Amino acid sequence: MLDPDIIFLNHGSYGATPVPVFEEYRDWQIKLERQPVLFLGRELQNYLKHARECLGKYLNADPDDLVYVPNATFGVNIVARSLNLTPDDEILMTNHEYGACENTWWFICEKTRSRLRRQQITLPVNDEQEIMEQLWQGVTDRTRLIFVSHVSSPTAITFPVERICARARQCGILTFVDGAHAPGQINVDLQAIGADFYVGNCHKWMLAPKGAGFIHVRRENQTLIEPIIVSWGWPAAAEHSTGSPFLDYLQNWGTRDHAASLSVPAAIHFLGDYKWEEIQRSCHAMLAGVIEAMGELTGLEKVYSRSSFYQQMAALTLPEQVDVVHMKEHLYNKNRIEIPCYRWEERPIMRLSVQGYNTQQELQYLLSAVEQYLKQAA
Amino acid sequence: MLDPDIIFLNHGSYGATPVPVFEEYRDWQIKLERQPVLFLGRELQNYLKHARECLGKYLNADPDDLVYVPNATFGVNIVARSLNLTPDDEILMTNHEYGACENTWWFICEKTRSRLRRQQITLPVNDEQEIMEQLWQGVTDRTRLIFVSHVSSPTAITFPVERICARARQCGILTFVDGAHAPGQINVDLQAIGADFYVGNCHKWMLAPKGAGFIHVRRENQTLIEPIIVSWGWPAAAEHSTGSPFLDYLQNWGTRDHAASLSVPAAIHFLGDYKWEEIQRSCHAMLAGVIEAMGELTGLEKVYSRSSFYQQMAALTLPEQVDVVHMKEHLYNKNRIEIPCYRWEERPIMRLSVQGYNTQQELQYLLSAVEQYLKQAA
Repeated sequence: MLDPDIIFLNHGSYGATPVPVFEEYRDWQIKLERQPVLFLGRELQNYLKHARECLGKYLNADPDDLVYVPNATFGVNIVARSLNLTPDDEILMTNHEYGACENTWWFICEKTRSRLRRQQITLPVNDEQEIMEQLWQGVTDRTRLIFVSHVSSPTAITFPVERICARARQCGILTFVDGAHAPGQINVDLQAIGADFYVGNCHKWMLAPKGAGFIHVRRENQTLIEPIIVSWGWPAAAEHSTGSPFLDYLQNWGTRDHAASLSVPAAIHFLGDYKWEEIQRSCHAMLAGVIEAMGELTGLEKVYSRSSFYQQMAALTLPEQVDVVHMKEHLYNKNRIEIPCYRWEERPIMRLSVQGYNTQQELQYLLSAVEQYLKQAA
Repeated sequence: MLDPDIIFLNHGSYGATPVPVFEEYRDWQIKLERQPVLFLGRELQNYLKHARECLGKYLNADPDDLVYVPNATFGVNIVARSLNLTPDDEILMTNHEYGACENTWWFICEKTRSRLRRQQITLPVNDEQEIMEQLWQGVTDRTRLIFVSHVSSPTAITFPVERICARARQCGILTFVDGAHAPGQINVDLQAIGADFYVGNCHKWMLAPKGAGFIHVRRENQTLIEPIIVSWGWPAAAEHSTGSPFLDYLQNWGTRDHAASLSVPAAIHFLGDYKWEEIQRSCHAMLAGVIEAMGELTGLEKVYSRSSFYQQMAALTLPEQVDVVHMKEHLYNKNRIEIPCYRWEERPIMRLSVQGYNTQQELQYLLSAVEQYLKQAA
């Protein structure tokens, strides 16, 4: 449904929805309007259950440990509020976390007078062991929880979350993985990862409509969870209870449109119908080519030492002197290319997403546009 | 868009959206999908500003004191969390409040060890002065805030909120009006009401799509407000700031579909195009007729001594021995009538909503269905 006049190389920010998934989405909205009391008051629980089951199968998780939320940040807020942190607690995160989530932790830590540690993970990333060692330099005997991205937003690095979660568990530290950019881009097996808390988006790489995120909480931690928007689900609902306080607390927060979450099964079918794993591989190969070409073009150090650290999205280092705001606007206004350019920890970065709708030709065009821009700016 | 096979007499629960408003809604969603980065990242603030301006005009409020939220309950949660209550504080509400909001106050008061007082307002309601006196029996020198419905959900009573807010202000008590059922059903003038906090829904009586609520906070109280879902808006956003921390805190909470809020101007236009005040009057007259007829049918005391206490929605008292669950199901399965029946404070109630799409014939049919049911049940 994307504007054909734009070369859209920023799938990572908000995703994009295929027509058949959008049609399903619209059908849910029409169904709701046809008989809102039947839909919201009596049938919704079953529709949501089905949507949780499909997602659970896709993520290898028990559907009763999953709840749909509007987006990953919403899920981060649920956990941050539920922990009831004290001044004795520390939260450990990396310097690669998404700004909105980092803001959430700053807010909660300020409010509860607990401490937030922001551990440096240096670039380029060389191997998982190095990441582990750098991260663990931030662990103290007060560390209550480690918050880490599965695929980081500013730097598009796949973090070794399975290893991080296993080691933290041995230390008695809770783990919280921000998978906003993970499902649909990389394989997500929630059982294997073993995080205490995991949030993600279906509207980015899984191609669902906007507003379909999820939170996964291991059964043993569900008693920690409080409702963030209290409504009919707390205290344990008598009438429309699912039997699980965790689900009741988080699913019920008043009248709204659930169509995005309910369209996730259609998005999963779409990924299957189009053999998405092949498309992912082909996108990855195209992206690897651009990373190489950009390295030759700029002569700068790459963010990744190996291609296993990224999948369909990558951070490309730009020359130090680049005005990233101007470059972003120039590429959009002059070349009709939508791609984010920003500074992360001083480093100028262009973040490239390659999705099924992108072509080799578009990537070639990006490279020549960047080459031209850098020449002009030099 | 309602199913023509159902006699829909429960507009009050979730509203219903006219076709032209729904079309506008769908157009917003298509526009978002066409260029999500342009829409969510760069244009959204202006679209929301326009939608706030239209709503502000409709409610006689400064648009910068208004924020769209998914629903009224969401807004209640924002304020309840922001107050940072202590064990010295008391919240006073009536026994006519909406269950989900009452739950919110129980949750917050339990968490902060503050006290919730639930003051009885007896039926029938006779005059405003009596309501004021009953409510003020619950005021103590610890009362921090009075929470009261503009139009109550279980009993459909219009409360004298202007008088309540004025008197509370004299006593130094904050006021919070739950207008979930008010705008679009009765005239709402936020300046005249003068509540410290006011929440409402546009998806009920204003005919907007589901998920369009709002919160209004008097300028002087905006510094009290904390973000409930922390994201890019806290701390004061550098990049996409509106200039108002209040707006930034509450508007920004991650990727989602804003189409319901953005369709509110279309809903307001629809109300104007169809001269909705005339329709409201005609609905009110039809409703008054049913209340009379039901009184004759059951011989029971009415909830309202005067017709100025209700507008397009009314609570009808049912005979004491009625099984309300069975009656509700019977009316739906046998007569295809969607109408809620429940017990409120022991009293069996049927809540009737009359909206522009309802006819005198449908109301006659309801009356004969009720008559038949009560005869059978007797």
